[in-house]
Amino acid sequence: MVYFDHNATTPVDPAVLEAMLPWFSGQYGNASSRHELGRAARRAIDEARARVAAAVGAHPTEVIFTSGGSEANNLFIKGVAASMKPGALAVSAVEHPSVIEAAEQLARRGWQLCRLVVDGAGCVDEAAYWQSLSLRPKLVSVMLANNETGVVQNVAALAQTARDCGIVFHTDGVQALGKMALDFRALNAGGVKALTLSAHKLGGPKGAGALVMDKGIELEPLIAGGGQERDLRSGTENVAAIVGFGAACELATRRLAERATRLSALRQRLEDGLRAQGAVLFGSSVKRLPNTICFALAGFDGETLITRLDRAGYALSSGSACSSVDPEPSHVLKAMGVSDELARGAVRLSLGTGNTQAQADDFLIALRDTVAELQQLTAFAV
Amino acid sequence: MVYFDHNATTPVDPAVLEAMLPWFSGQYGNASSRHELGRAARRAIDEARARVAAAVGAHPTEVIFTSGGSEANNLFIKGVAASMKPGALAVSAVEHPSVIEAAEQLARRGWQLCRLVVDGAGCVDEAAYWQSLSLRPKLVSVMLANNETGVVQNVAALAQTARDCGIVFHTDGVQALGKMALDFRALNAGGVKALTLSAHKLGGPKGAGALVMDKGIELEPLIAGGGQERDLRSGTENVAAIVGFGAACELATRRLAERATRLSALRQRLEDGLRAQGAVLFGSSVKRLPNTICFALAGFDGETLITRLDRAGYALSSGSACSSVDPEPSHVLKAMGVSDELARGAVRLSLGTGNTQAQADDFLIALRDTVAELQQLTAFAV
Repeated sequence: MVYFDHNATTPVDPAVLEAMLPWFSGQYGNASSRHELGRAARRAIDEARARVAAAVGAHPTEVIFTSGGSEANNLFIKGVAASMKPGALAVSAVEHPSVIEAAEQLARRGWQLCRLVVDGAGCVDEAAYWQSLSLRPKLVSVMLANNETGVVQNVAALAQTARDCGIVFHTDGVQALGKMALDFRALNAGGVKALTLSAHKLGGPKGAGALVMDKGIELEPLIAGGGQERDLRSGTENVAAIVGFGAACELATRRLAERATRLSALRQRLEDGLRAQGAVLFGSSVKRLPNTICFALAGFDGETLITRLDRAGYALSSGSACSSVDPEPSHVLKAMGVSDELARGAVRLSLGTGNTQAQADDFLIALRDTVAELQQLTAFAV
Repeated sequence: MVYFDHNATTPVDPAVLEAMLPWFSGQYGNASSRHELGRAARRAIDEARARVAAAVGAHPTEVIFTSGGSEANNLFIKGVAASMKPGALAVSAVEHPSVIEAAEQLARRGWQLCRLVVDGAGCVDEAAYWQSLSLRPKLVSVMLANNETGVVQNVAALAQTARDCGIVFHTDGVQALGKMALDFRALNAGGVKALTLSAHKLGGPKGAGALVMDKGIELEPLIAGGGQERDLRSGTENVAAIVGFGAACELATRRLAERATRLSALRQRLEDGLRAQGAVLFGSSVKRLPNTICFALAGFDGETLITRLDRAGYALSSGSACSSVDPEPSHVLKAMGVSDELARGAVRLSLGTGNTQAQADDFLIALRDTVAELQQLTAFAV
C-alpha cells in the first residue's frame, strides 16, 4: 500500500515508538504519584513538554497537553468563551470541523458567529476580515494551514489587526506542525494568543495534542478534576503518548528543512503529471504546505476515484478524513467558490516521510489507467 | 520496586501491549479514512467496542470512547446538564475530583449542587439521600467503588429511588472495572443511565476510557468536531489505546473471579498484619473492592511513611494519585468523619496482578521497621 494520506494521520516513526515503549509496562507510573515510578513519569512529561515547546518556539509552561487537536481547539474556543459574556466570535469558513462545531455550540449559547470568507484560492479575504472586525468579535480563530488544500493563511497579518482591537486570536496549527517552521514567540508578539497542535500528523502517536497558550489568557477547563496541566486539563496524563509527541517534535524539527525541500519537489512532479492529465489543482496559486495536493478531474467522482485507487494500492482521501463519513462536498472547497460538481471530484493527496519519486510516477500511471477504465465503463453504459 | 498503587494506575499487561503494537506503525490508518488502512482501524475499534461492552454487559452501541475516565465523567455531567435548564444536581461527597469539579463548574453556571453525605464507613447515607431527593435533582452521580478506600456503594438501591423520581443517574465505575462484576444491562434496568470506565486501571493503557450510556439520554459533546463516536466525542480515535482497552477488558473479565479470590486473601493477610501493628483501617466494615486497603497509624504522617517506604522499594499512595499534589487531607476521609490528624496519616495500598504473598509479608516487616525508625527519630528529637 502506497500511503498518500499523511494529512489524515501518519505512521508512528520507529524512533518515536522506541521512545514510547518503556512507558507502557516498565515505567508505568501515574505522574501524580509521589513514589519513584510516579516521579519518573513526571520527569518524562516535563522533558516532552520542553521538546514540544522547543519545536514551536514556546516556553514549556505555555504547553497544555490534551488528547489531541480536536480537544485543544474545543478547550480554547469554549474555555475562553466560558470566562466571557457572550458576544461575537469569528472563525474562517475553511476551519477544521472541531473549530467550526465548537463555535456553533457557542452560537447556540448566545454568541454571534461570523464566518470569515475566503477567496478563490482559499485565503481569508483580508478586506472582508477587516469589515468583520466592526462586529467587535471577542474571539477569532484562523488556522495556520488547511488540512484539505494545504493553503497557508496569513495569520501574522490577521492577528496583528486583531491585537490592535483587543481580540483573543487563536490559530489551529495541527497541519502546519512538522511541515513549516512555527514560532509561537513571534506569533504571540504579533497577537496570537494560542496555537493548537497534534502529535499524530507528524509521526507521533494518536492520543496526544497540545494547546500552546499565552499565560495571560483566562481559560475554563473542558475536563475538570484532579488538577493536571495547571488545572486546565485534568485526567491522568497519557505518558507514553506525550513522550512520543515530544520525540516526534524533536525529529520533525531536525528534519524540517530537508523534508520540505524533498516533499516540495515530489509535489511538483505530481502536480506536473496531474496537470498533464487535465486536473484542476485547488489553492495552487498561493502559499501551501509542501506536502498537500487537492485536485479534481472534471467529470470524475472523487469517491469513485479513491475507491479504485485504494484497490490499486494507493491510500488517498476524498476530503478530510474527519469528514469522510459526510457525503456532502467539502465545506472548504465550497467556501472557495468551487461548484458542488467539481468539489465532488476532489481528491486529496498528502505526502509524507516514506513517499518516493517512484511512488509518485507509478501513481500517475495508476491514475491514468483508472480514469481510462472509468471512461470505458461510462462508454459501455451509454 | 514492589508496586502497591494499582488504584493510581497499572502496568499495561504484556498481552495488551502485544495487541496494541500493530496499530502504531503498521496499521496506522485514521479510522475515518475510507481506504483499506482506515477501514482496518475502524474494524479494530468496532471489535474493541464489542469487548468493552461485553465486559460490562452493555450493547456495543452504548459505548462512547473517550480519552479516559475524567473526560467521561465531565462529558456526562456537563453534557447532560447542557441539554437541560439549570436545576439541582447531587453528587456524593466521596466522588472522584473529576465528578466533583464538573459539578462545581455547573454550580458556577446556576445549578444548585447538593453533596450527598456518607456515613463513617464511607457509604452514602440512604436516609440523607432520600431527603436530598426533595430538592428534585435532575442529575445524580454516585460512584460504584471509591478510589481511596475501595468502599462499594449500593448504587442499585440509590438508582432505583432516582428512577422512580425521573432523575438521570450516573455512576463512575473506573475503580470497579476489573475488580468486581459489572452489569450495565441490570444497572440500566434499575435506573442507572450511564457508567464511566477507564482502561489504565485494569492493565490497559492510559489514554482510553468510555462512557457507557443509555441511548435515550440527550448529551451535548464536550469535544465537538469531526463527528466521531456518534457525534458525541469528536477527534481522531486513539486506535492503539482503544484496542488495548478492549484487550484489557477481555483479560480482566476472564480473570475476574480468580483475581478477586487471590487479592482478597492477600488483602486479608495484609490487614491482619496491619491491625497487629495498631493500624486503623478505613471502610473495612463494609463491602469493598478486593484489592484496596486504606489505613493510618495514629501519630504517623502518611506522606512521611510513603516517602520512606518508597526508599525501601514500596510504591504506595498517601491518597488518590490524582490529588497527591494537594496537601489537604483526603476529602473522602474527611467526609467519613475522620479527623484531619488521622486523615493526614492515611496510606493507600492497592493490590494488583503482580503482587504476591511474599511481597505482602516483606512489606509488613518494612513498615514495622520504618515505624521503628521514625519512633527512634522522634525519641532523639525529644
